[in-house]
Amino acid sequence: MSECVKTGDWVLLYHDEKHRYTVKVEEGRVYHTTHGSVNLTEVVGKRYGETVRTNIGEDLVVSRANLLDRLGSLRRFTQVIYPKDAAYIVVSANIGPGSRVVEAGTGTGFLTAILAWYVRPSGRVYTYEIRKDFYEAALENLKEVGLLPYVEAKNKDIRKGIDESDVDAVVLDMPDPWNVAEEAYNALTHGGILAVFVPTVTQLERVIVAVRKSGFKVIEPVEVNVRKYKPVPGELRPETLGVLHTGYLLTARKL
Amino acid sequence: MSECVKTGDWVLLYHDEKHRYTVKVEEGRVYHTTHGSVNLTEVVGKRYGETVRTNIGEDLVVSRANLLDRLGSLRRFTQVIYPKDAAYIVVSANIGPGSRVVEAGTGTGFLTAILAWYVRPSGRVYTYEIRKDFYEAALENLKEVGLLPYVEAKNKDIRKGIDESDVDAVVLDMPDPWNVAEEAYNALTHGGILAVFVPTVTQLERVIVAVRKSGFKVIEPVEVNVRKYKPVPGELRPETLGVLHTGYLLTARKL
Amino acid sequence: MSECVKTGDWVLLYHDEKHRYTVKVEEGRVYHTTHGSVNLTEVVGKRYGETVRTNIGEDLVVSRANLLDRLGSLRRFTQVIYPKDAAYIVVSANIGPGSRVVEAGTGTGFLTAILAWYVRPSGRVYTYEIRKDFYEAALENLKEVGLLPYVEAKNKDIRKGIDESDVDAVVLDMPDPWNVAEEAYNALTHGGILAVFVPTVTQLERVIVAVRKSGFKVIEPVEVNVRKYKPVPGELRPETLGVLHTGYLLTARKL
Amino acid sequence: MSECVKTGDWVLLYHDEKHRYTVKVEEGRVYHTTHGSVNLTEVVGKRYGETVRTNIGEDLVVSRANLLDRLGSLRRFTQVIYPKDAAYIVVSANIGPGSRVVEAGTGTGFLTAILAWYVRPSGRVYTYEIRKDFYEAALENLKEVGLLPYVEAKNKDIRKGIDESDVDAVVLDMPDPWNVAEEAYNALTHGGILAVFVPTVTQLERVIVAVRKSGFKVIEPVEVNVRKYKPVPGELRPETLGVLHTGYLLTARKL
Repeated sequence: MSECVKTGDWVLLYHDEKHRYTVKVEEGRVYHTTHGSVNLTEVVGKRYGETVRTNIGEDLVVSRANLLDRLGSLRRFTQVIYPKDAAYIVVSANIGPGSRVVEAGTGTGFLTAILAWYVRPSGRVYTYEIRKDFYEAALENLKEVGLLPYVEAKNKDIRKGIDESDVDAVVLDMPDPWNVAEEAYNALTHGGILAVFVPTVTQLERVIVAVRKSGFKVIEPVEVNVRKYKPVPGELRPETLGVLHTGYLLTARKL
Repeated sequence: MSECVKTGDWVLLYHDEKHRYTVKVEEGRVYHTTHGSVNLTEVVGKRYGETVRTNIGEDLVVSRANLLDRLGSLRRFTQVIYPKDAAYIVVSANIGPGSRVVEAGTGTGFLTAILAWYVRPSGRVYTYEIRKDFYEAALENLKEVGLLPYVEAKNKDIRKGIDESDVDAVVLDMPDPWNVAEEAYNALTHGGILAVFVPTVTQLERVIVAVRKSGFKVIEPVEVNVRKYKPVPGELRPETLGVLHTGYLLTARKL
Repeated sequence: MSECVKTGDWVLLYHDEKHRYTVKVEEGRVYHTTHGSVNLTEVVGKRYGETVRTNIGEDLVVSRANLLDRLGSLRRFTQVIYPKDAAYIVVSANIGPGSRVVEAGTGTGFLTAILAWYVRPSGRVYTYEIRKDFYEAALENLKEVGLLPYVEAKNKDIRKGIDESDVDAVVLDMPDPWNVAEEAYNALTHGGILAVFVPTVTQLERVIVAVRKSGFKVIEPVEVNVRKYKPVPGELRPETLGVLHTGYLLTARKL
Repeated sequence: MSECVKTGDWVLLYHDEKHRYTVKVEEGRVYHTTHGSVNLTEVVGKRYGETVRTNIGEDLVVSRANLLDRLGSLRRFTQVIYPKDAAYIVVSANIGPGSRVVEAGTGTGFLTAILAWYVRPSGRVYTYEIRKDFYEAALENLKEVGLLPYVEAKNKDIRKGIDESDVDAVVLDMPDPWNVAEEAYNALTHGGILAVFVPTVTQLERVIVAVRKSGFKVIEPVEVNVRKYKPVPGELRPETLGVLHTGYLLTARKL
């Protein structure tokens, strides 16, 4: 209910549609915005919905920051999967509370974080990353957003083997997922789901060949397209310019 | 691990790509398929991945049935939201373990079940349905798939008021969601998200007007289109015919 | 104007949105519709916009039939290109009055007829078809719709050579267009355009390789998607089901 | 065949994929490119496919410029319809050699030019424009690309009446096309087609109401989406960013 902001909470400070800021509250820290700076100590104890004033007299509304807000505030993420694709993976691969999921590559942990958030509190994400710098950035990012307890991160080449067995889902976002099809099949429980993301149709074709060969069934390659509309009553229309393509998604099952 | 099938488990019996059956295992029940009938008592004690033989000698592989398998096996569901749209709602409205979500209308409980599955074990879905027959069908369906413990279903008109407060999300799939915009705003926590599904662009325009008037920010109307590909290597192409449109989704936040 | 219908004219007889009939007026011929039969002799001399009565007393409005009406009335066409794709080819390949165009394969002449209609009166379509039955059906179809004078049809394998030179455009709708890339390049005038239609992305990739190797520039592969809306004010929305994919189009230029 | 460039011809000078120039050859004129300048007198007499050297020693291949090249080279065009939409209009409104077409508004003449090119040599485009500056720019543009002989341009408000009758098509690209629906119906021949372009779905809904009221049949609102692919073999995929929406097209017939 009328809960108050505590140190360590993530908050969203809202000024207007184009200026909102997501920040983790730490006492003593000063946070700079284009509408002046905020002493985060002043945010502690505020009720959600109350405002905090910047040093130049602008009021910012204090709201709860959600998962995507938090992930968006981390500078370290590079080349991440879009929420539209992550959403399709989560639901079509049946990833939810308690799921045990293998993922590769970790990258800097964006999709890992989303998966971890959904398998809480009893599930686990086992994530493989071959590059040490990415692995370390991911550890830091996951810790920052509070999701590390649900993740087992490994600085390992998944093509050399998957340590886990009887997992509910395997999620692959890596350049050559066809090289992991057989390992993924063996790691999955019966009924479990493989989900693959690849940017090009050339890769998609190779993945289809590999998963079929490895014994997967119900192979479903798709494209997910989200088109935003301008929310202007009386002039409703889709945005003129935007994202036309991110990649292809393929799900397949061990049956 | 090498867990065995128990009474009450949901299993998926796989014969081939076009013939797979989802069923809840009850001792003594005989289940009929186009490849013969199965005495479900024989399924109990099987390890996942083993086969069961029908009375005409066909083998079916026994696998775990997931949430969408279970929902798909329920005959009562009519006119339900597509998984692509449910996925977008779940992720863009930040609905996960522990979330408290208000939903209307319940319909026969398809989306309710998905939401309930994601808020487990500590969250709750408070769902409103004005029609008594739908409300009762939904109760039965939710019980059948084991998700009733996470749902508080009400045979009530949401337009007359929302009982809950400080909820994380409000999800509306009803003919006139604009009549609930203000109630939804009041029921949400600061930072909480409203998600609305409507089939026509005429409705979408009315929703935009109403949510803006009620004080919502970051209003984002979208369309989610999923295009399936035929998984035939050497002849890769999208399906020729299929679903061109289900509806429009709008998210907005209380900030 | 108030021009009158003459023998040999194509007319469109309109009863209602779902029942309209395109027919070539021949004296003495009786034309059967689901609303009764019409003696076409009675249509001769009608002004456009007047009605003709069937033998069961239903009135049909007499209108001019256009090119697509005529093509749609020919039973002999099989597996034809969609108007959306034909439109893109015509405009992006700069095919208009006076253009000299090479086409393969003719099929039963649907696209040939569209191209011929646009190059009238001084242009020509040189069309190649390897199958004799298709070639003969195309000749008959083109004659029926009055476009044969603008077409030079050949029962020949285009892969063995193109007889024409300095043509403005080459249009390929055949299984292995990559085998004609070099011939097409040689046949085109400088600045001329190649347009290729293929159903699968696997074919598209082979075409791209071939046209690049043959020296083509400004290679542009696209997909054209047309989504129909239900024209119901107050309930405006796209059609639920429909065509998701026909094929890929590629244009390239000799520069 | 081996025709030579003459004064007044439009040529396309090609350096590489990102640098090609369309210019009308005038003796004595010096044309500047990012690869040096060309004395156009030197282009006269060249055969197509030969090169011309710039003052800094770069070679440009001389090719024929087509209609879209020419239109693209005119600086005066503003806010023009996309070729994808123009293509759909031309083919679905059955506009070809000999067609008599009414258009409004002219704007600076881009769509007028395309229509005029297709109705050559015996057809006519009657185009209405309320703004004098646009009307004058259009006259100049049409003259420059050589299509003025096929156009009758008027500095008139089409909402006050259409002078022509029994026309084959009426094409409307103006803010309030619903105000012309009845005039359009009266101006069309029986069987003739109305084609309307509007950017917003709000306008589309008003157009549907108006054309239905005016007696039009076979009302078909659509969206035409063209998605470009990157022509890279081995990495085939759609462009990441691009045009998501231009507008809605509606065709309707007088039957």
